[in-house]
Amino acid sequence: MLKAKIFVQLKPSVLDPQGKAVTNSLSHLGYNNVNETRISKYIEITFDSADREATEAQTRKICDSLLANPNTETYHFELEEI
Amino acid sequence: MLKAKIFVQLKPSVLDPQGKAVTNSLSHLGYNNVNETRISKYIEITFDSADREATEAQTRKICDSLLANPNTETYHFELEEI
Repeated sequence: MLKAKIFVQLKPSVLDPQGKAVTNSLSHLGYNNVNETRISKYIEITFDSADREATEAQTRKICDSLLANPNTETYHFELEEI
Repeated sequence: MLKAKIFVQLKPSVLDPQGKAVTNSLSHLGYNNVNETRISKYIEITFDSADREATEAQTRKICDSLLANPNTETYHFELEEI
């Protein structure tokens, strides 16, 4: 079995309102040394497959068609044998 | 400067409806070898600090008080110099 560990992150140029809200909350809580917070998705998909190459292509397709918004987000992933 | 890379994940025993929805969508799209999908948060916080030990304690406090729900979620993180 293979596990894909996928990070879907907003492009650096895209405003992250949720992250901004956390930064503001932290500042109100007295954490004044926080510069920036970025919030992303981390997705684990477990595949019933041992074919690394095919699973990599499949994961890329899944990210392109379902998990990431190509206009505002980028993704990267790694495969791990489990 | 230090960057905390924080993973906030649902406890394994807690149902992940968003992940379940993705698994179902993938099955409808013809990906029948997907066993399970778990969706988590990945948060990067940039600290204006070089003190590793203090920042580690601070990050733990932030996770406990703001980022993770102790009833349903666990977290782990690492610090990286940037």
